[in-house]
Amino acid sequence: MTGAAIVEIEALKSGRLITVDWGTSNFRSALLDDAGHVIDRIQAPRGILHLAAGEFPTALQELLAPWLPHLPAVPILMAGMVGSADGLFEVPYLPCPARLDDVADALVQIPNVDLDRPVFIVPGLRSQSTAGTHDVMRGEEIQILGAIDDDASEMQTFCLPGTHSKWVALDGRRVMHFSTSMTGDVFAALRNHTILSRFAREGEHNPEAFARGIALAEQPGGLLHHLFSARAEVLLGGLAADADAAYLSGILIGEEVRSMLEALNTQGPVTLIGDARLTELYAEALSAFGHDTRRIDGDQAAVAGLHYLASHAGLTTSGH
Amino acid sequence: MTGAAIVEIEALKSGRLITVDWGTSNFRSALLDDAGHVIDRIQAPRGILHLAAGEFPTALQELLAPWLPHLPAVPILMAGMVGSADGLFEVPYLPCPARLDDVADALVQIPNVDLDRPVFIVPGLRSQSTAGTHDVMRGEEIQILGAIDDDASEMQTFCLPGTHSKWVALDGRRVMHFSTSMTGDVFAALRNHTILSRFAREGEHNPEAFARGIALAEQPGGLLHHLFSARAEVLLGGLAADADAAYLSGILIGEEVRSMLEALNTQGPVTLIGDARLTELYAEALSAFGHDTRRIDGDQAAVAGLHYLASHAGLTTSGH
Repeated sequence: MTGAAIVEIEALKSGRLITVDWGTSNFRSALLDDAGHVIDRIQAPRGILHLAAGEFPTALQELLAPWLPHLPAVPILMAGMVGSADGLFEVPYLPCPARLDDVADALVQIPNVDLDRPVFIVPGLRSQSTAGTHDVMRGEEIQILGAIDDDASEMQTFCLPGTHSKWVALDGRRVMHFSTSMTGDVFAALRNHTILSRFAREGEHNPEAFARGIALAEQPGGLLHHLFSARAEVLLGGLAADADAAYLSGILIGEEVRSMLEALNTQGPVTLIGDARLTELYAEALSAFGHDTRRIDGDQAAVAGLHYLASHAGLTTSGH
Repeated sequence: MTGAAIVEIEALKSGRLITVDWGTSNFRSALLDDAGHVIDRIQAPRGILHLAAGEFPTALQELLAPWLPHLPAVPILMAGMVGSADGLFEVPYLPCPARLDDVADALVQIPNVDLDRPVFIVPGLRSQSTAGTHDVMRGEEIQILGAIDDDASEMQTFCLPGTHSKWVALDGRRVMHFSTSMTGDVFAALRNHTILSRFAREGEHNPEAFARGIALAEQPGGLLHHLFSARAEVLLGGLAADADAAYLSGILIGEEVRSMLEALNTQGPVTLIGDARLTELYAEALSAFGHDTRRIDGDQAAVAGLHYLASHAGLTTSGH
């Protein structure tokens, strides 16, 4: 856990909103002033998977202990899996198409947390995917809100790469539909729990091997076949074992990007939201398929989105 | 381990060939008479992954102990991963295109095993796959040999489903090329080591959910997206949790079958070689894409292939 210790107590007192992005694996909080600037941060590897049903209120109080005594009545606004059935309080998904600004009207104040201040959770979104199946997100809608232009009016494609990557079709500030790819989750399972675990070991990123993997996405045979080459190319194809993880990453990201560009019929640039390392890999893949990209930091986008929502819903002035 | 105890010692003495299919996970042996009929079987879950480099000769002697004293000089013919770098003795792959009968000319007699009889290993095959990458098989070539007609002359597609499914293009008795899909391996990794592990639990086979998964292969979005629906459809789509494993199986087998039919441009029926349960699932999938199938038992095919090879190479009369 980081934060608070190095920030002057006096500085904390200009805080007007506590934002929380509470996901499956991590807890990420920011204290914002009136203008939405970050005064301090608290982060911990205490995602909702690490907590049992009754432990959320206490965990929240513990995690935010460096701030709460100095910030009476400052509201808390949370997004992410904290609003799922496995989280603190289940908040129903809003159906797509959904205006991002509709999300502000659908904040839910949580009844079962007593922290001497209001605590809100942002609803997630649900959609029919490009394949006609159900799809869901919790938290990414906030990052999109923090990244999109106030006056956006054209059709745009956003991609939020990760364990479960989201590809989002927007018409202006309206989320038309989205589709999830399990790319990061599958990558980890393949590397650790299949025959590829003997080959795809940890190594430096290898741009050449990554590009070779990306290129496979345009070859016939399908992903389940392409994956096997991450074994056979090391055995017989002159691919170095320490390049195999990058090759496998290229195969998976290439498949995701090619399939999604095709399914969404994306013509122009793609906006990537996420951490620097992942968005760089996706930018390489998109470039290989002829698409320009705009890259936006995921943490900054989450904070900006939550601040926008709080302002829009009139939360930041409550209690002051 | 099974075998020998219930077979009369006298009956064993008509044995003329010991066949072994020694794969990654299992050891499967059959004792054959002159006509290739099975007199007895020995099987054990002692695949090559369970053995260290120096343990193979002793393991072979132990596994075949019920037979060896009664069958002086009867040769042993082995196929499968036993001939890989991790097996008893590395036998190089034959390159494709390869006539199946060429395999008989390429048997390798193993120098470092002293069992008072000759021990041979069948080479595997290597190929350029439909995606232009390297591909390999060890053992499946024997099953194909045991399943193919003596006078086969037309183009045919064979599919050997499993942990690493093989799709093989044959021109008569010549293997033109083949491609591997990691379908079974990926299925196990997804069910046990991704977010789907909370949904795709063990259950009865569910033909309706399986068919629903198969049908997804023709929808846009790509496999990495389709997989996520095995979570979202349970959350929101009315798919029962105990049907989710069948649905996931359908998604994966559907992707494999559709991609391979397309890559191989297969027009006619497909010959399936494997166990009853898997070939039934693949037959359902192939039928959904408009293809008839012929189903052949994998163990019987392996024994028939090894007997054919031994006869062809003149092994069965050696020492008699």
